[in-house]
Amino acid sequence: MKINERDFLSIRNMLSRFAYVPDDQMKAFQALLSKASYRKHEYFTKAGDAQCHIGYVLDGLFRLFYIDLKGKEYTKNFMLPNHLVAAYNSILRGKPSNLYIQALKDSEVLLIDHCEWLKLAESHCCWQIVLRKITEGAYLQKEKRESDLLFYDAETRYVNFKNEFPDLLRHVRQHHIASFLGMSPETLSRIKKLNHDKCQ
Amino acid sequence: MKINERDFLSIRNMLSRFAYVPDDQMKAFQALLSKASYRKHEYFTKAGDAQCHIGYVLDGLFRLFYIDLKGKEYTKNFMLPNHLVAAYNSILRGKPSNLYIQALKDSEVLLIDHCEWLKLAESHCCWQIVLRKITEGAYLQKEKRESDLLFYDAETRYVNFKNEFPDLLRHVRQHHIASFLGMSPETLSRIKKLNHDKCQ
Repeated sequence: MKINERDFLSIRNMLSRFAYVPDDQMKAFQALLSKASYRKHEYFTKAGDAQCHIGYVLDGLFRLFYIDLKGKEYTKNFMLPNHLVAAYNSILRGKPSNLYIQALKDSEVLLIDHCEWLKLAESHCCWQIVLRKITEGAYLQKEKRESDLLFYDAETRYVNFKNEFPDLLRHVRQHHIASFLGMSPETLSRIKKLNHDKCQ
Repeated sequence: MKINERDFLSIRNMLSRFAYVPDDQMKAFQALLSKASYRKHEYFTKAGDAQCHIGYVLDGLFRLFYIDLKGKEYTKNFMLPNHLVAAYNSILRGKPSNLYIQALKDSEVLLIDHCEWLKLAESHCCWQIVLRKITEGAYLQKEKRESDLLFYDAETRYVNFKNEFPDLLRHVRQHHIASFLGMSPETLSRIKKLNHDKCQ
């Protein structure tokens, strides 16, 4: 699929928030990109795949989840437009991970081969800064989630989620949101009623 | 406290595993270090502190934990010699975190001011690679822990812990190990008996 100027501007803006990237480096980076689309329910990656691509969500929505040995799903995260989506664990270790990433809506993604990006990073330090800050962001997100699950009660977690991701409530099934928030679907339903929200 | 050659060699070896660091850069880095000792039970950091130092454990042992609003402790990690110890969340965000880091034995640490390290990183790209890889390691460690808690039963988690940290069983209280492994002290005690381990 063809990458248009608007697509590239979007990822360029994200990169520029991390570090100053000179024009020649941006051009070299652009040459590494490809574009892919995922139909609703299609997988970006599945457990057992060894991933080497990082995705930048142009449009759509993804759910990241695990399935434990008893077949129960645990929703780890949701990825919205203008964010990176990846089985980052698998990419960094060069080994398959346990993660599933599935499109919840028809979605479009810019794909970046991480190995090619690392090669480019050898030629200019700006990419090391960009990659460092991306990893720091991923780390902080995981820390925040751990801390939220520990320090906030179920209702506060739901209210924070509603404020942070208002659109998700319309597109994501109730039991996936409940799993992400670390509560049962029944608890979520009760909290939504208390908050005068429409139950899905 | 004076930093001797053996102390510096230890941290130098760790840094060299991440990237090639030229001698002049190693010297500049050495000038940023200070050495501190912590008596058993003394705190490296407490919840509410805004931390700017990363520690490199020369000797001793630290426990990282949260205390929830009901006063219950959750052991997040243990840090052994030749590893970095930090309220990394607080350092990256420049804000206080909820984390406590406490010495479980008399301990010695090399301290690095993260802001000074970032300034040094502006002068040479090797530090960006080092800092990127440190963050990647911290991220992977968190992913592994999340995945272990999800995919392994209590007994497997205990056996893995025993294999990975054989020395910790002697120095860490049973309820702290149980908290780290996400099980009750009673479950841990039962598993240890089944594994023919001495109960502490």
